[in-house]
Amino acid sequence: MREICRIAARVFYEKGYDGASMQDIASAVGLTKAGLYHHIESKDHLLFEIMNYGMDILQEAVLDKVKDIADPREKLRRTIIGHIDLIVRARDLEITVILHENRSLKGALRTKINARKREYIRHLEDLIAAVQQQKGGKPVIAPRLAAFALLGIINWLYQWYRPEGAVKQEELASTYADFFFRGLLGAA
Amino acid sequence: MREICRIAARVFYEKGYDGASMQDIASAVGLTKAGLYHHIESKDHLLFEIMNYGMDILQEAVLDKVKDIADPREKLRRTIIGHIDLIVRARDLEITVILHENRSLKGALRTKINARKREYIRHLEDLIAAVQQQKGGKPVIAPRLAAFALLGIINWLYQWYRPEGAVKQEELASTYADFFFRGLLGAA
Repeated sequence: MREICRIAARVFYEKGYDGASMQDIASAVGLTKAGLYHHIESKDHLLFEIMNYGMDILQEAVLDKVKDIADPREKLRRTIIGHIDLIVRARDLEITVILHENRSLKGALRTKINARKREYIRHLEDLIAAVQQQKGGKPVIAPRLAAFALLGIINWLYQWYRPEGAVKQEELASTYADFFFRGLLGAA
Repeated sequence: MREICRIAARVFYEKGYDGASMQDIASAVGLTKAGLYHHIESKDHLLFEIMNYGMDILQEAVLDKVKDIADPREKLRRTIIGHIDLIVRARDLEITVILHENRSLKGALRTKINARKREYIRHLEDLIAAVQQQKGGKPVIAPRLAAFALLGIINWLYQWYRPEGAVKQEELASTYADFFFRGLLGAA
């Protein structure tokens, strides 16, 4: 199913969700149309599965890896670096893009994906609040606004950043983590 | 033409670029298909005109208004606030979204739009470098990375921010301007 998701994501990315037919996807995957419908009941469900897969990757590649870190600041830093790594990986570019452009998904499936996105945002907010509390004093930005600023910085990367360019990924991630902590805490 | 751009943007937003036909757009605008082709030679050109219109608005509503401000920090702050205002305006939401999702545009038309986008980024970079220079000392982030962080924060707003919610637009804009300057300069 993950392989189907990855290939279908590429087809949606290239042809647009409305422009791609189930036949296009079946051909790309190497199945007959009937064979594809054996795996997935509709184009809507396929889009949902792709987005759900994107959220699974975020969980596995980022959240699961930082869950045992006790210090909130270090945990947030590792989360930022992990999320940047995920977005920058060429392999999953199409999935990232589809996850952002979720207007095509409607109704209950959309609600489910949005609930998973909200859960991640709440996780970031909690972590940010813990970092602010650890520092002490009056916070200079609401955790929710800081969380969305961070998501904006990271999720925008797919629009412009290419890891083969002048700025190496490690430098990018550490520069942005530092930038975020300065913005959040008022000092480097 | 601007009215056609606005209405066509809404149709593309709702049906997707590939899903919307020139007939759909003609109907929405209140023209016959032949009448629409009198104004615009193809769907590609229409998409280009919408994006070009989006960049015109950015020029008029943001850049033209700050061009006489001498102090780089004040000029950058007004640019940030003006750009946020533009993104947040419900009236032009569809145009913003289409401007971001520019994969549908190909070839020479895409190159032209990307050149206008690059020009705006260069403008931000120059302004950021001037602010860093004004402060003195060794810059803590490259102007280019700071410019893209800023664009990410602002351009992501359409995904989550609703001006009728708890955070008023003025508060949002000033919070993010402050956040950006702390991240850029290392102090509030």
